[in-house]
Amino acid sequence: MSVTAAAGFRAAGVAAGVKSSGAKDVALVVNDGPLSSAAAVFTANRAKANPVLWSQQAIAGGSARAVVLNSGGANCFTGAFGFQTTHQTAERVAERLGIGAIDVQVASTGLIGVGDEAFRAAVLHGVDLAAEALAADGGEDAARAIMTTDSVPKQAVARGADHGAAASGGRWVVGGMAKGAGMLAPGLATMLVVLTTDAAAPADVLDRALRAATRATFDRLDSDGCMSTNDSVWLLASGASGIEADEAALTAAVTAVCDDLAAQLQQDAEGASHDITIEVTGAGTEDDAVVVGRSVARSNLFKAAIFGNDPNWGRVLAAIGTTDAPFDPYAVDVSFNGVRVCHAGEPDRPREEVDLAPRATRILIELHAGDAAATIRTNDLTHDYVHENSAYAS
Amino acid sequence: MSVTAAAGFRAAGVAAGVKSSGAKDVALVVNDGPLSSAAAVFTANRAKANPVLWSQQAIAGGSARAVVLNSGGANCFTGAFGFQTTHQTAERVAERLGIGAIDVQVASTGLIGVGDEAFRAAVLHGVDLAAEALAADGGEDAARAIMTTDSVPKQAVARGADHGAAASGGRWVVGGMAKGAGMLAPGLATMLVVLTTDAAAPADVLDRALRAATRATFDRLDSDGCMSTNDSVWLLASGASGIEADEAALTAAVTAVCDDLAAQLQQDAEGASHDITIEVTGAGTEDDAVVVGRSVARSNLFKAAIFGNDPNWGRVLAAIGTTDAPFDPYAVDVSFNGVRVCHAGEPDRPREEVDLAPRATRILIELHAGDAAATIRTNDLTHDYVHENSAYAS
Repeated sequence: MSVTAAAGFRAAGVAAGVKSSGAKDVALVVNDGPLSSAAAVFTANRAKANPVLWSQQAIAGGSARAVVLNSGGANCFTGAFGFQTTHQTAERVAERLGIGAIDVQVASTGLIGVGDEAFRAAVLHGVDLAAEALAADGGEDAARAIMTTDSVPKQAVARGADHGAAASGGRWVVGGMAKGAGMLAPGLATMLVVLTTDAAAPADVLDRALRAATRATFDRLDSDGCMSTNDSVWLLASGASGIEADEAALTAAVTAVCDDLAAQLQQDAEGASHDITIEVTGAGTEDDAVVVGRSVARSNLFKAAIFGNDPNWGRVLAAIGTTDAPFDPYAVDVSFNGVRVCHAGEPDRPREEVDLAPRATRILIELHAGDAAATIRTNDLTHDYVHENSAYAS
Repeated sequence: MSVTAAAGFRAAGVAAGVKSSGAKDVALVVNDGPLSSAAAVFTANRAKANPVLWSQQAIAGGSARAVVLNSGGANCFTGAFGFQTTHQTAERVAERLGIGAIDVQVASTGLIGVGDEAFRAAVLHGVDLAAEALAADGGEDAARAIMTTDSVPKQAVARGADHGAAASGGRWVVGGMAKGAGMLAPGLATMLVVLTTDAAAPADVLDRALRAATRATFDRLDSDGCMSTNDSVWLLASGASGIEADEAALTAAVTAVCDDLAAQLQQDAEGASHDITIEVTGAGTEDDAVVVGRSVARSNLFKAAIFGNDPNWGRVLAAIGTTDAPFDPYAVDVSFNGVRVCHAGEPDRPREEVDLAPRATRILIELHAGDAAATIRTNDLTHDYVHENSAYAS
């Protein structure tokens, strides 16, 4: 049920004083092999944190033996000193584990601009502590050490379902942990995800599986339309199961874990009172469906209406009308929690029939312009969101 | 100081029962000529209200004798019945004034989906009342009749400054009124603006002047990133001054009135506690500067930070990093109310030096990538914004 669910991985999460609260703040995940193939996806933001700048280069060869992550500071826009901090962190991990620094991926999360001498000293101290604490059941500690505004740790696991092995529930595992309440691009807060598998797979297979999975999961979680400087998602394979995974089965398992973690991120989004699933059907292409769904997910007026339990379909149509996806705005049907309140661009069922009291909220937008569909996850815009994000830095 | 400041115009604002509150809800602005040249800019939203669909067609010839506007209902996504309501409204105005319906522009504002039989009857009744009440000093009443969530009417005036006439303060006038707390594209709520001038100018000159003015004013007011279905801005010329306006002078006067009205809209934006001016300098092109400024204006995290009096420059850099405007994110300077808190992508002055208590907030973003600049206006994201927009429909 964690980043150590797959064989061949150890992890740790320790309190090293990066956070002033004394909570766990440094996590280490180690791949003991025999393989060290790895893939990663990083934020599309051009303003990238120092650990992202490092990790992008270090993983270019498709290999990684460890991921070290800290909360309590993003080490972003901290200049040459901050990049040196990241480099020193990788070197310290390498030294403790007897591997090369190039095989160490680094992640940081917290406030932008935080990364001074004290930060550096605490993170390096955390590496020492974490290296001592590494354990085959350390996944839960690691998941806790990467939390910032998260109220709960996020972990998920899926068993491989290779041909012939499906009946037995699969013989390899994909496990993972996540923090944040956002998405890869964009993201509410920094989203960090580490996925591990004991299946045997080369880096190019991992890369394709990871990109396919994130595209359909984290990329469609749009909590508040903001894109982080630190978002990173890793997939590490140890091959410890001795089984070469079928690529389709691996992709399915990785996608299942990502989907589970994305749902956990959505449910823990800062200040949210509704988890909104926006399903767009009848689009010309899947990309069109995503664009349409995202336009609604980014409408503050729509999101505030959901907070107020108001099935305001006018705000849905006003949002999708700003896209250039091919459809006729006057042919669209919109349903809130199963009640079609707008048919062919005109009022349909009375809004009083819609019950928006449950946290889980389902919006269905039928474009009647094709056969493609996509689902976007978002949250409502609440007083608590404003409060948490106006008070976060203080 | 209003839409009747220019000679040749009469206006009225009456209470006709469109609003259940009994407040004024139908406005009529009439151009008595001798000219009837006119130009307009409408929402870029593909989901357009019925009055926009009508007015776009009716103004194609560059002429308009009257604009009739109602609050209390947007008449958007109300189907064929709603379009007939708009058409009947134009015909009723035409009948009362003895002009052609094609010379009548129509605008509506309020909730999407509102436009039933009772709405139609009330609006038509309002036309009758307004036609009776038309007066050369009716601008103030008209400005009040188009208010929805506005707390104050918005009016502005500028005197023409033609060559040779500048010393006397100009011999023609541009006046206007506005409602809403948003922008042309996008807009927070429906923004309706009627500008009048007694200068003599053909429709093509009015069109160029209006587009230049709105591009630099309303198009750069981005209160909450949402685009309305009803936004419309008109410029009507009566020619009653008998003076043919120099195009540059007319553009300058129209821009001045639009800028004044845009500032009034910003200051009355729903729930806002800060009026934020985002100035972007050192951009490669003016369009780049607008894109960069808009990315910040649309960041909920940035806007919530300002509400919390937090000079969170990290959220500024995270926002501008999502654009593809050419600049180096690690070379950027960011100042809050005159204090440079980020220099060359690293922390500069302490955040404690920044005073964000005043309502007027000035963000300066120096890109160091060229000579172009632009200014975007927005507001903070507050508890009151969430409240007003979650409770608006109830």
